[in-house]
Amino acid sequence: MPFPQRLTHLRARLDAAEVDALLVTALPNVRYLTGFTGSAGVLLVTGSGDPLAHLVTDGRYRTQADEQLVAAGVHGAVELTVGGVQAQRQALAARARAVSVRRLGLEADHVTWSSQRRWTEDLAPAVPVATSGVVEALRQVKDSGELARMERAAAIADAALGEVLSLLGERRREDEVALALDTAMRRLGAEDRAFETIIASGPNAAKPHARPSARTIVPGDPVVVDFGAIFDGYRSDMTRTFCVGGEPAETLARVFEVVGAAQAAGVAAVRAGVTTGDVDKACRDLIADAGWAEAFEHGTGHGVGLDIHEAPALGPGSTAILGADVVVTVEPGVYLAGIGGVRVEDTVVVTADGCHTLTRFPKDIAA
Amino acid sequence: MPFPQRLTHLRARLDAAEVDALLVTALPNVRYLTGFTGSAGVLLVTGSGDPLAHLVTDGRYRTQADEQLVAAGVHGAVELTVGGVQAQRQALAARARAVSVRRLGLEADHVTWSSQRRWTEDLAPAVPVATSGVVEALRQVKDSGELARMERAAAIADAALGEVLSLLGERRREDEVALALDTAMRRLGAEDRAFETIIASGPNAAKPHARPSARTIVPGDPVVVDFGAIFDGYRSDMTRTFCVGGEPAETLARVFEVVGAAQAAGVAAVRAGVTTGDVDKACRDLIADAGWAEAFEHGTGHGVGLDIHEAPALGPGSTAILGADVVVTVEPGVYLAGIGGVRVEDTVVVTADGCHTLTRFPKDIAA
Repeated sequence: MPFPQRLTHLRARLDAAEVDALLVTALPNVRYLTGFTGSAGVLLVTGSGDPLAHLVTDGRYRTQADEQLVAAGVHGAVELTVGGVQAQRQALAARARAVSVRRLGLEADHVTWSSQRRWTEDLAPAVPVATSGVVEALRQVKDSGELARMERAAAIADAALGEVLSLLGERRREDEVALALDTAMRRLGAEDRAFETIIASGPNAAKPHARPSARTIVPGDPVVVDFGAIFDGYRSDMTRTFCVGGEPAETLARVFEVVGAAQAAGVAAVRAGVTTGDVDKACRDLIADAGWAEAFEHGTGHGVGLDIHEAPALGPGSTAILGADVVVTVEPGVYLAGIGGVRVEDTVVVTADGCHTLTRFPKDIAA
Repeated sequence: MPFPQRLTHLRARLDAAEVDALLVTALPNVRYLTGFTGSAGVLLVTGSGDPLAHLVTDGRYRTQADEQLVAAGVHGAVELTVGGVQAQRQALAARARAVSVRRLGLEADHVTWSSQRRWTEDLAPAVPVATSGVVEALRQVKDSGELARMERAAAIADAALGEVLSLLGERRREDEVALALDTAMRRLGAEDRAFETIIASGPNAAKPHARPSARTIVPGDPVVVDFGAIFDGYRSDMTRTFCVGGEPAETLARVFEVVGAAQAAGVAAVRAGVTTGDVDKACRDLIADAGWAEAFEHGTGHGVGLDIHEAPALGPGSTAILGADVVVTVEPGVYLAGIGGVRVEDTVVVTADGCHTLTRFPKDIAA
């Protein structure tokens, strides 16, 4: 939803969270609610009073904070205090007193214990309440501006992979290919990679979280390429697995086939109204039928947006219901020690009757 | 100090921290104490009992954790439990009970509030105690292996800057130069950049924390280049400011002169036994004498190592005493809106009678 509505929707949810105000300390949440991208800032959103919220930050961000609140259209809804730590705390304490905050929500999964203790002292007599996922629930549903940024991030990643793919057949090291891919994404307009790029070849492909090594990629190798781009804060996430120099042998050929089919089944299962567990089951059943249930050792996917891992998680038995414009990954994999591994992943946008795939690089396995 | 001594020294400090055991959750601290580099792991160091400590992690890191404990020479000193979340918690709870932990230290500046609540429940009847900087105090003093890694990181950064310096005179965009520098560091053997590289030109040079923009660098610009490399986990940090295409005009020339002299005075003030505030004062006095006290708007430096910002901080009035083999930056700057800015920074190792500079790129300002 557009910026000003994000704050009003959050305010409307504070009662359900059993708090009178929420102190937003996770920076991606501050950015989502106000447009402010500085590396330091805290936002107090109150259940009553005018304006809706109060942002504090330090002198480095004086001009930037002001400009970004205006750009987001929340300049009237968010009061801004710029100053030292004491001034920031006093401003939020005064605001909490002015609207008689008794139950103060703190983002328990993000705020450190020492910050929790300090805020509790500063904002007394308000009593701290541990909250979890309040802003993250709003962030699941992307608006058109967010979707456009994610589409752009995915397109940059697609183009970058197209530029470097031929390196896989040129006996390069994994870390050389990773560097080439990261460099191509930035040259094509990405702010940065979305996470540490995985280039896992041969036996390394059997490790879901391998880091690029000095291993030289050779003909016959499976190569898992898992990477993404950031565009204006929003991330993409895609995995392709290639077989270098021709067709994979025996077992590996069957792994490619099964994982490809499982991933297609997972994507086909995505639509508004299904549960995250339904999508996981669509992938997992095909892999289990092939006898590799134990070899699919992670969840099927996760939400993505300002963070690379957001709500909802798609795992066995997970019960969250997918809504339209939620963005998730679908990424089954099978990992066999000594043989290698295959993972295939797309980032998709949930729609009323299916989904729209943002990551569009072809799934041909030849490289 | 070598790995096994790190654990015994930490154990010896638990009494002073008024705890019977410390639950180490900050990953750089876990790495420092055990050599384990995984992205998930918790270490319980107990004040009594044998072995000294207990590390828990998940199945992804089974082989790696075992190998890294052996490599660090702490395989006998650290018991390892690999498993799911429940198994991990039970292992630590059993260990805490076995040595009768009553006061359980938690790293309050790192552990989230929700983790603190969970650990408090899991490890009851031990009572949680907020600790701050216990392992970080040990990390200040680097051993020869750590210094060798930091020297290598600094050398990679020096070489990378040498490769890309000529771009400053070729009317490139700031973000192009940043990409070239980051790419060169990785090609030369860095794991990654140590932090987001700053290339701040012209008016942007007046912003201490500018991010590389699409601005084209033109003759006459001051250009602040602040960057570092990571080698085997350890970071370097260096800033040089150049004047593109010849000599700077008027005020800017004087800024270059004053900041250069202030930085040299700061480095000259470093030796074992002085306070961090002494080093800050050596820089700040020269800048204040030139009339720019207000324009030097940040501290003089910080410790560096596994993290880019570590203890100790070097600021006005700071009282920590520098010891031999502590590694700190010395980085005064003057920032004048509309004119530009100059910052010069080295990473130095404190010695008995002075310091040893790791970052050695020449300080000529022509580019």
